[in-house]
Amino acid sequence: MNTFGRNFRVTTFGESHGVGIGCVIDGCPPGLAVDIAFIQGELNRRRPGQSNIVTQRKESDTVEILSGVFEGNTTGAPVTFFIRNSDAKSKDYDELRHTFRPSHADFTYHKKYKGFNDYTGGGRSSARTTAALVAAGSLAKLILQAKNIIITAYVQQVGEISLHTPYCDLDFSLIETTAVRCPDLALAEAMINLIQRVKKEGDTVGGIVQGIIQNCPVGLGEPLHDKLHARLGQAMLSIPAAKGFEYGSGFAGAALRGSQHNDIFIRTELGDIKTKTNHSGGIQGGISNGMDIPFRVAFKPVATLLQRQETVDKNGNETTLHGRGRHDACVLPRAVPIVEALAALTIVDFLV
Amino acid sequence: MNTFGRNFRVTTFGESHGVGIGCVIDGCPPGLAVDIAFIQGELNRRRPGQSNIVTQRKESDTVEILSGVFEGNTTGAPVTFFIRNSDAKSKDYDELRHTFRPSHADFTYHKKYKGFNDYTGGGRSSARTTAALVAAGSLAKLILQAKNIIITAYVQQVGEISLHTPYCDLDFSLIETTAVRCPDLALAEAMINLIQRVKKEGDTVGGIVQGIIQNCPVGLGEPLHDKLHARLGQAMLSIPAAKGFEYGSGFAGAALRGSQHNDIFIRTELGDIKTKTNHSGGIQGGISNGMDIPFRVAFKPVATLLQRQETVDKNGNETTLHGRGRHDACVLPRAVPIVEALAALTIVDFLV
Amino acid sequence: MNTFGRNFRVTTFGESHGVGIGCVIDGCPPGLAVDIAFIQGELNRRRPGQSNIVTQRKESDTVEILSGVFEGNTTGAPVTFFIRNSDAKSKDYDELRHTFRPSHADFTYHKKYKGFNDYTGGGRSSARTTAALVAAGSLAKLILQAKNIIITAYVQQVGEISLHTPYCDLDFSLIETTAVRCPDLALAEAMINLIQRVKKEGDTVGGIVQGIIQNCPVGLGEPLHDKLHARLGQAMLSIPAAKGFEYGSGFAGAALRGSQHNDIFIRTELGDIKTKTNHSGGIQGGISNGMDIPFRVAFKPVATLLQRQETVDKNGNETTLHGRGRHDACVLPRAVPIVEALAALTIVDFLV
Amino acid sequence: MNTFGRNFRVTTFGESHGVGIGCVIDGCPPGLAVDIAFIQGELNRRRPGQSNIVTQRKESDTVEILSGVFEGNTTGAPVTFFIRNSDAKSKDYDELRHTFRPSHADFTYHKKYKGFNDYTGGGRSSARTTAALVAAGSLAKLILQAKNIIITAYVQQVGEISLHTPYCDLDFSLIETTAVRCPDLALAEAMINLIQRVKKEGDTVGGIVQGIIQNCPVGLGEPLHDKLHARLGQAMLSIPAAKGFEYGSGFAGAALRGSQHNDIFIRTELGDIKTKTNHSGGIQGGISNGMDIPFRVAFKPVATLLQRQETVDKNGNETTLHGRGRHDACVLPRAVPIVEALAALTIVDFLV
Repeated sequence: MNTFGRNFRVTTFGESHGVGIGCVIDGCPPGLAVDIAFIQGELNRRRPGQSNIVTQRKESDTVEILSGVFEGNTTGAPVTFFIRNSDAKSKDYDELRHTFRPSHADFTYHKKYKGFNDYTGGGRSSARTTAALVAAGSLAKLILQAKNIIITAYVQQVGEISLHTPYCDLDFSLIETTAVRCPDLALAEAMINLIQRVKKEGDTVGGIVQGIIQNCPVGLGEPLHDKLHARLGQAMLSIPAAKGFEYGSGFAGAALRGSQHNDIFIRTELGDIKTKTNHSGGIQGGISNGMDIPFRVAFKPVATLLQRQETVDKNGNETTLHGRGRHDACVLPRAVPIVEALAALTIVDFLV
Repeated sequence: MNTFGRNFRVTTFGESHGVGIGCVIDGCPPGLAVDIAFIQGELNRRRPGQSNIVTQRKESDTVEILSGVFEGNTTGAPVTFFIRNSDAKSKDYDELRHTFRPSHADFTYHKKYKGFNDYTGGGRSSARTTAALVAAGSLAKLILQAKNIIITAYVQQVGEISLHTPYCDLDFSLIETTAVRCPDLALAEAMINLIQRVKKEGDTVGGIVQGIIQNCPVGLGEPLHDKLHARLGQAMLSIPAAKGFEYGSGFAGAALRGSQHNDIFIRTELGDIKTKTNHSGGIQGGISNGMDIPFRVAFKPVATLLQRQETVDKNGNETTLHGRGRHDACVLPRAVPIVEALAALTIVDFLV
Repeated sequence: MNTFGRNFRVTTFGESHGVGIGCVIDGCPPGLAVDIAFIQGELNRRRPGQSNIVTQRKESDTVEILSGVFEGNTTGAPVTFFIRNSDAKSKDYDELRHTFRPSHADFTYHKKYKGFNDYTGGGRSSARTTAALVAAGSLAKLILQAKNIIITAYVQQVGEISLHTPYCDLDFSLIETTAVRCPDLALAEAMINLIQRVKKEGDTVGGIVQGIIQNCPVGLGEPLHDKLHARLGQAMLSIPAAKGFEYGSGFAGAALRGSQHNDIFIRTELGDIKTKTNHSGGIQGGISNGMDIPFRVAFKPVATLLQRQETVDKNGNETTLHGRGRHDACVLPRAVPIVEALAALTIVDFLV
Repeated sequence: MNTFGRNFRVTTFGESHGVGIGCVIDGCPPGLAVDIAFIQGELNRRRPGQSNIVTQRKESDTVEILSGVFEGNTTGAPVTFFIRNSDAKSKDYDELRHTFRPSHADFTYHKKYKGFNDYTGGGRSSARTTAALVAAGSLAKLILQAKNIIITAYVQQVGEISLHTPYCDLDFSLIETTAVRCPDLALAEAMINLIQRVKKEGDTVGGIVQGIIQNCPVGLGEPLHDKLHARLGQAMLSIPAAKGFEYGSGFAGAALRGSQHNDIFIRTELGDIKTKTNHSGGIQGGISNGMDIPFRVAFKPVATLLQRQETVDKNGNETTLHGRGRHDACVLPRAVPIVEALAALTIVDFLV
């Protein structure tokens, strides 16, 4: 239940305010050079406090390797990453001992785990658990890099501000140059302004991340229940706050005719078989066909507000939350490395 | 890879033009009365030839039980359903021996299975494989009925014709009264007209199915990677032609503020804890909270056209497909029981 | 629970007196030529009625292929084998509706499945279910043959009659020349005489099967919980009536010193690394080292006697079973192909 | 591959001479009081240096909890145990960089992991990995204790010295009173003398551990491939140095007649159904019947000798190992808590 993947199996553990967050990766091939600086860099992209538009929780998110690496390389044994928590003030969360925050997992966890769940900071339901996935995903990325498979994500929409340029007409090198990770710099500024305005109101705002997998070899995915896009969709929908997933023509494809949607096969000058268009999104019958795999993930606004909200406590009595402290007005910039990590884990799971 | 589910495990087998299609269900509790008429009725809802807007392939889709049922009840041993093929004329498909149909799985299967895949009628990639899932899903529905969990689906969109009434304001009893399975009868007629027009052109059209799970108990779903909506999404995306999935506020939720999106907890007169609104879509932190679970699945237009199309053959040479015979101008009406079956299988898998 | 294997996954179904017995094999590589005559031949080695020392139940055990084979080759899709039951007279088993046979699974199944299990002929607990495994194992053998991996089994002991010659000094070509499948012809005759004597008394007798896997490549098996011998042991212990498993030096190795038991590495003339002795049984640290893998499986005498036996009925009242009809005085000759099938499935599961 | 169990899933990680050894337990129910003193006590029973007949490696084996426990109870989230290594002198093992120790996993790991395995101290193949299983098993024992299920193991044989008294006639309270964990004190002294003699010779000696599961409820185990004894056997055979497993009548049962072996059902005064004898070993048809489950595990002498041994190096050249340092002349006393831990994990996996 806490394991992601079938061949490259990532078992995560840890809570927001416990000792730390980690994962065990079982199935990593031996002989992979483990570039710690790269892995730490990926964690830094997800880290709180990286810019003034994300949460200011103070965590260095420094990764330690507890097993599976010897003389700089993976050994074929399980690789364990561990990230100690430092900014875990349980007293900030005393209110949560008794009260269910709206649209958080407090109520469902309380019921499912019969009141024994660690509620401090959201415990196991905290988005902090994604740090372990980013660490694992960065190991997956190292495997993909060696095969020239490239995974990119960027923020396509924040609230009502949406980037309409197709991904192929964008300069991906601009993504990391803005705090909001949108490669259209004018729109990026507008998005940042929106996030700052929302933040001041103690409110939050949702958005959409666009992901693209490039140079994926032909043949990944299984025909029935483990279709490549079905597994990719499950991975994306497992990210906290995700509400929707589409790939290729997506929801817009529902309005098309088959004669518009079909991707005609052609032979390239190199003798490869490609398609003229790519409404299929690089996947046919659940199996990659070698074209780009573009997909989109919708995120709702995060539930923690710095506003008063009505709710009920664990006894079912009506009460009020006051919404103090820190909050993340928009999860989108930090969702980008998470989307990439989960895409990398999905692809690697079919590859190894 | 051909198994769906972890506790209520459905392993499917069979090809479009082989001996038949079937499934083995492992994990069904003992003592369930197997209502064959109900199961056959569900298969009839998916069957080709059921109305003049679906494919006219002649299949009775009669289900046989090969194991696991004794004196009318499940025994706890694997239940095997088998549906013999009757209308399997391989000669119709000689063209496919050499040619890749656009936007079909012919190319990816050929590459993945090194040319050994059964290409007749699409073989294993045929949507005919969903018959086995509908049979398994109907067994799952029998389990859910006993717990008063209700799963409903209907066609919300065909091509550009879309039903905007929220599901709670619709009369579900009208769904099965029209060939297109849309409960708004005026829109249903428009959809049918559109499908017939498209059919005459030898073309196809996509659409959207809305599903709703009602009376789901609190606590289903796992917190990290097996979130209820992530598993539901994987199931829906595994249906042939599916391009997108959303639940609750979905893609539209991305444009909202947290103060609009958060669902306030209230205590009902019965003392239960419910939420005032349901943007969360009945799931918080990946776990059901007892509210309705509404979701939408987008389907592209199916790829088989009765039109000439350019393509390449297995040697990479350019060629033309002529598009003769039968085709399904719109898969949406038949997708309804498949969506229900996969929702039922997803829920049962967390329940048993 | 009814699935064997992780990569070459065999899901079995069916009951002794139901429609039939079968299995779905998921994970078989495409392009394997399916030699039906060989598969049927393996089933004939397990079949009842093959000689006068085994049960005379009348079953032809004719195998049908329901999916996964196209133009004589596997396609990469699930392969389904089905064997219809013919000699299923439920009235022979009316007594079992109410009574627990000693040392059968009647009592434990009745409790586990809350009285809903199919008790006719033992239902799912019948050794007849092994027919499906022999069919699957024969497909696995075809894969192994192509890699020159050879699996052999023979009867080493029946009751108190035991063959002490080491396997390397035996002529395996003699195994199938006797009804009891022991390659020492003098001992084979003594075993046959013992079985016939026991049969006349309406009694049964146990024994031991020796198995040997030859030409296994270096590197099969996983280091911790999926050690090659641990998985082989689980497979063997899943055979009805199995009570013990040992490999290499086995139980006798417990009395040795390390200086006697250690297998010294040497370099062969071909430059390969081998060991001088093979107390390790071809496996070190759970992983095959390229040497022969010998193992032994102990079988208790089967529980069906043609004798009066005291027991209790489903209400807990004392009663008497009369032991009429057919019985298998010694399961050992028919266990030989089952042991081979499960060894083949275990090895293939690590190979594919 | 490094995960044990299906419902109570224990994923282990770590190497002999790395940072430490640990495990993640996924599937532990919430609300279990975690008795750290008990868990540490179990680890102390496995610890090196606990008596003068075991290896003198200096490890305190102090367990830390990294996740899954909140205010003293399990939360339902993954529980992580971690045991730091302290006595890890890699320079002791320089010899192993180039040379394959006889009957160790050096050769098979080198081949399987293409030379990237951590060879220091045996790395992942070291019996030190069993510390993680003992920690996990102690959590499983806490679950079993609450249900009054009792698991006991003791040393039945060391080399040629064997205890013939049936387990029911022994005083289990004596097991922990001797360094060798044999409840017959006279034999225990003889075993200790033998181990000390063997130790002085730089040699090692094997033996047999007897295990008994008591008060197991009726109904554990699955009928076909996951029979209770098959899973128990796999667990035991996964312990380093295990060569054989038997339960109930075991190998001796092969020589019996059915009329001797069958266990007659009786009704007890309390109205329960029991069997008069227990040749079945508490399991019928793979499912527990409520009687005791006795089993035996054979261990070969461990491979590390303080003697000169011939072998080959990684280039295939003949060389000599000198056998210096510490060694464990007999693994049996320390195997007792490991056998108990794996039996507890097997039972709990069917229970939760």
